[in-house]
Amino acid sequence: MGKKLFPAEALLVFAQQVLQNAGVREDDSRTIADTLVCADLRGIHSHGIGKLDQYLARVNAKVLDPAAQVEIERENPVTSVINAHNGFGQAAARHAMELALQKAGAYGIGMVLVNHSNHFGIASYYSLMAAERGFIGFAATNASPGIAPFGAKEKLFGTNPISIAVPSKSSFPVVLDMSSSVVARGKVRQALAAGGEIPLGWARDRNGIPTTDPAEAIKGTLEPISGPKGSALALMVEILCGVLASSAMPGEVRVITDTSGPCGTGHMLCAIDPSSFADSEQFLADMDETIARIKSLTPVNGEVFVPGELEHLCAEKGRLEGIALKENAVSALSALSEKYGVPLIGEEGHDE
Amino acid sequence: MGKKLFPAEALLVFAQQVLQNAGVREDDSRTIADTLVCADLRGIHSHGIGKLDQYLARVNAKVLDPAAQVEIERENPVTSVINAHNGFGQAAARHAMELALQKAGAYGIGMVLVNHSNHFGIASYYSLMAAERGFIGFAATNASPGIAPFGAKEKLFGTNPISIAVPSKSSFPVVLDMSSSVVARGKVRQALAAGGEIPLGWARDRNGIPTTDPAEAIKGTLEPISGPKGSALALMVEILCGVLASSAMPGEVRVITDTSGPCGTGHMLCAIDPSSFADSEQFLADMDETIARIKSLTPVNGEVFVPGELEHLCAEKGRLEGIALKENAVSALSALSEKYGVPLIGEEGHDE
Repeated sequence: MGKKLFPAEALLVFAQQVLQNAGVREDDSRTIADTLVCADLRGIHSHGIGKLDQYLARVNAKVLDPAAQVEIERENPVTSVINAHNGFGQAAARHAMELALQKAGAYGIGMVLVNHSNHFGIASYYSLMAAERGFIGFAATNASPGIAPFGAKEKLFGTNPISIAVPSKSSFPVVLDMSSSVVARGKVRQALAAGGEIPLGWARDRNGIPTTDPAEAIKGTLEPISGPKGSALALMVEILCGVLASSAMPGEVRVITDTSGPCGTGHMLCAIDPSSFADSEQFLADMDETIARIKSLTPVNGEVFVPGELEHLCAEKGRLEGIALKENAVSALSALSEKYGVPLIGEEGHDE
Repeated sequence: MGKKLFPAEALLVFAQQVLQNAGVREDDSRTIADTLVCADLRGIHSHGIGKLDQYLARVNAKVLDPAAQVEIERENPVTSVINAHNGFGQAAARHAMELALQKAGAYGIGMVLVNHSNHFGIASYYSLMAAERGFIGFAATNASPGIAPFGAKEKLFGTNPISIAVPSKSSFPVVLDMSSSVVARGKVRQALAAGGEIPLGWARDRNGIPTTDPAEAIKGTLEPISGPKGSALALMVEILCGVLASSAMPGEVRVITDTSGPCGTGHMLCAIDPSSFADSEQFLADMDETIARIKSLTPVNGEVFVPGELEHLCAEKGRLEGIALKENAVSALSALSEKYGVPLIGEEGHDE
């Protein structure tokens, strides 16, 4: 399939303008566009600018309020709860991480929960906000049901991603960004569209039997990582982002394509100031040493990469050379360009 | 193999007296004995009273100070760092969780790191301390190298367990307690002793090739859960418990059987007060509802169990009926009984 190259800045301006024309305030539109382009730059296209039409479908169906103002429901020196009032998850989560960083600056730790929110993009966007300022960042979100609790047939937990980002002195930030399932639902959908099978170990059918048929997998459940471990991890995210945040209970988050009502998503954002525990300079130097120790190991193939390194390299390349989007993603953007009257400028790329 | 039944209280008193005779103060010996019996009660015998002779071997080799006093190195309202001064990990970790709970009571969150420590038993002992008082507890520890960073041949990260415990209103606490590897090293050792093979997916040989030979696996590395995910999770525990705690850098924790020097283990203990984020009664009721939703799902086989439920049931049974220990564990305790002059009282059990 053909690809098209776009400068990152062009995609950012395009997304921002489309969002503003859809009723999003200028500051929020910048945040949302930034998370989408950040995902594309880091190579996580499932959460990139291609997500824009799903978001706007929710706005058009009036089940996501593009102009919502976040409200601080509970405020303590170290903790807060923010009500997103059914606005964009990105706007609320960025606000929440800013607040967590302020609290962490004063007390060493800040933790902010967000309720009545929506899809917030990639979790690592928020953990990286912390790492870029020398803090350790944690971000998690619940999601629509995809995983069956270990030993059950029906899905109840979301794939519930978790991200942790840690700064270093002279290298890139070390970043964990993982879902609680072996693969994202998108990979199963891709296999279904391509007419192929999926590997055993990705998913189960409605009867809880492991399947290689993507159609059965879509009706069934995604396999949690390492069985009971991933299932318990997904449950803990349900508890922190849903139950404790007074957002959706397990099983109640609406899937993004279901426009019959609000998603009710909840998030957890947490920041830790390393200087509360150690000498900051020493800690950052020790993180460089940690990275160096991993990089110096004998690779199984080619080179050993540290978590977050490949995404960092991908983003550096993307900023210089542009972001390559697939034909179907470009078509979706062209439709938005026409609908919202915002020009889309890119270059024809070469087939990969 | 024959088994022998011991009342939990008898094992507790035995372990406590042996530890005191080995030079451990009375309060610390009670804590250490309690963590060991708690592990046996919850069915996690790898971290039960059978661990006692490994601990005492370190004391006898003078690489673990049984009479060490913990020292608070850094103290802030919400965070602290405790130096265990190479004493028992259990004594330091319990102290750290008590401190984290005090801080969480005042500020909503408390986080305490421990450096220069030793093996602390099961991580869930400390997270449960929090849950039993209505708080959410987090506990993690680094460990001697067992896992290769994803894409590398040599081990660098420990199996680095993480536990989270959440209270409920009228049910048991929900508990995640997992290592970052697919299985513990002990399971590979068991297969080696039994002369059998291990399943593919548990471990790799020294060349990074998946192996079914337990002897090759022992020389090689344990497989992290879900490849890059478990590897990144293990790294984050190395960072929090080792690098940030100013304890061992990745790769530097000594294995418990290596008596050439201190272990240098580090721990992370964190407590969250739910009332800082939500109405406490509502939160506890919502946890009951969360448990009920999971229990009401269609089981794949028999019954769906919530994380921590089987361990809770096992402990209830053990408190009533006693703890069954295998013949080799009983032999080890008998040797300690003779060496430290402490009587060991149990009943002959039936073969299973």
